[in-house]
Amino acid sequence: MRFIMTATTAKPHPSTNRKFVLAARPVGMPKESDFDLVSEPLPPLQDGQILLRTQYLSVDPYMRGRMTGVRTYADPVDIGQLMVGGTVGEVIESRNPDFRPGQIVVGFWGWQEFAISDGDGLRLLDPKLAPVSTALGVLGMPGMTAYFGLLEICQPRSGETVVVSGAAGAVGSLVGQIARIKDCEVVGVTGSDEKVAWLIGELGFSAAFNYKTATDYGARLQDLCPNGVDCYFDNVGGALSDAMLSVINTKARIAICGQISQYNLAKPEPGPRVFRYLLTKSARAEGFLVYNFAQRFSEGIAQMAKWMKEGKIKYRETIVEGFESAPRALIGILSGHNTGKMLVKFN
Amino acid sequence: MRFIMTATTAKPHPSTNRKFVLAARPVGMPKESDFDLVSEPLPPLQDGQILLRTQYLSVDPYMRGRMTGVRTYADPVDIGQLMVGGTVGEVIESRNPDFRPGQIVVGFWGWQEFAISDGDGLRLLDPKLAPVSTALGVLGMPGMTAYFGLLEICQPRSGETVVVSGAAGAVGSLVGQIARIKDCEVVGVTGSDEKVAWLIGELGFSAAFNYKTATDYGARLQDLCPNGVDCYFDNVGGALSDAMLSVINTKARIAICGQISQYNLAKPEPGPRVFRYLLTKSARAEGFLVYNFAQRFSEGIAQMAKWMKEGKIKYRETIVEGFESAPRALIGILSGHNTGKMLVKFN
Repeated sequence: MRFIMTATTAKPHPSTNRKFVLAARPVGMPKESDFDLVSEPLPPLQDGQILLRTQYLSVDPYMRGRMTGVRTYADPVDIGQLMVGGTVGEVIESRNPDFRPGQIVVGFWGWQEFAISDGDGLRLLDPKLAPVSTALGVLGMPGMTAYFGLLEICQPRSGETVVVSGAAGAVGSLVGQIARIKDCEVVGVTGSDEKVAWLIGELGFSAAFNYKTATDYGARLQDLCPNGVDCYFDNVGGALSDAMLSVINTKARIAICGQISQYNLAKPEPGPRVFRYLLTKSARAEGFLVYNFAQRFSEGIAQMAKWMKEGKIKYRETIVEGFESAPRALIGILSGHNTGKMLVKFN
Repeated sequence: MRFIMTATTAKPHPSTNRKFVLAARPVGMPKESDFDLVSEPLPPLQDGQILLRTQYLSVDPYMRGRMTGVRTYADPVDIGQLMVGGTVGEVIESRNPDFRPGQIVVGFWGWQEFAISDGDGLRLLDPKLAPVSTALGVLGMPGMTAYFGLLEICQPRSGETVVVSGAAGAVGSLVGQIARIKDCEVVGVTGSDEKVAWLIGELGFSAAFNYKTATDYGARLQDLCPNGVDCYFDNVGGALSDAMLSVINTKARIAICGQISQYNLAKPEPGPRVFRYLLTKSARAEGFLVYNFAQRFSEGIAQMAKWMKEGKIKYRETIVEGFESAPRALIGILSGHNTGKMLVKFN
């Protein structure tokens, strides 16, 4: 990680911004040297603008995809360009009548300490209703991903068995709890014994297993899912998903939310062809992006907030302190070092 | 193929039945020696029974799956057991008040010259409305597969691009024509230049290509589908489906109807993992069986018959003469020797 200082000015009024830009396209797992920390002057506000100071940056697996120079559903981040990401911060100056200093907002201004915004795409938060960091987790993108992905793509019915991979992550831990609310049997697949204990002991999962110590995924799944698998919410992909295809029930629904096991492969691995499994089981596999449901986010946030208040949904945050730690936090989430939502808290 | 004669009797009253039973589970492509032609006495009718003389046997790719000793969505055919199959035939004797001699019915009495039935699962045909063989094709299982698979699983919209593999087969040729009725661009993938010409010249496909002479499926698909692929109706699987995943549009729908390229493999080939393609495109792949739509067959048959009468749906039959040819007909369909519906016509 290089520190490039292009300008500095004195306090108290912030006149310098620091941000992480993409320095190099990663090969395999990203390294800290794939990011540059850049300083730049912060210009004065124009009419209609506000100045935001970042409090929390969300760190999410999809960011790995944006670092690859390939357009998928979104444009990639170019070399030298600001890293994208969801953010919560405080309005510290305003020349926009819709905002006043002291307000807390959630938005998508990326890996930087300050941002100048015209207010577009920002949503005002009420710190009395919920900790503001939840706007990046249970009441934000991961929460909506879990809510709509499970309920709309998997459509679980009472008594069915739901398996979720990446089960202790920001999305997976919510998927399992929503499935419990819907009276399903819930089996989690995760990467440590501590996470297994948390899923079963605190979140009410029916069962869970540690894929890092399991030698035969198919056998573990058969053991923990005696009635087969009706819904599979997949954050991980790879060999676990291969094994899942042998245990799905007729008319199973697979929601493909992420494929984190595949993001850092230098080249794609082959696997067993899946169509014949879907054919013999009349099963469905469907990819989705949370933004497909953007029109319904207010409904989803209201329901998740209600379940939180009723104690039916719990959440955990893994907080990394200090803006400079953001690259390390992303590498950490790609390595499974988080439990629940991974956030960078700015000092 | 062994001929095992267990009994014979003289005409005129049929007292001997001949049938094909499974002699051996095929390894790879079935051989004629995997079937035995067996004769057995035909007992007199009991009250409530009818005697059927087979006129047409339907030969379909799914039969290969039943010859494998693995339960999928249906029980396998056991060694020594009658080969299953759809049939059309004449009632030649009746002790059942619902049937009288001379009536023509469609049913599922398998690879045999005669059958004794209690009438369950039989449907009466009117030879004046359509040739009775169509009850095994356009107005039967293949027709319903095309109709419900395309309209319910793919849900094509006007102006979209639909690709169908196995396009000149009983199902594929109907899928393409229904998609044309729904104002879609239709691209067929098939196994000979003659079939390509038939699809475009007679059935109104927008384009088609011969997969046996194509060297790069992805390039052919990109060339023939300039707007990408919205719906893929897959009868074939394998490398063609792999290539399809790179040309599907956002929110594409893949109906998995068959995987004929895979049925005769001694062991499954690996392929590129498909979930990441479905993820980035928010696309859906869904297997189905025609019997999932059994409650709606009368609706489907009525619509297909209407389209036939209006000249919007054409069909072709590949007829193999003689009951003894049934094994050869099945091997032929698994090798792509048919255009349209493959039938065995009994002498």
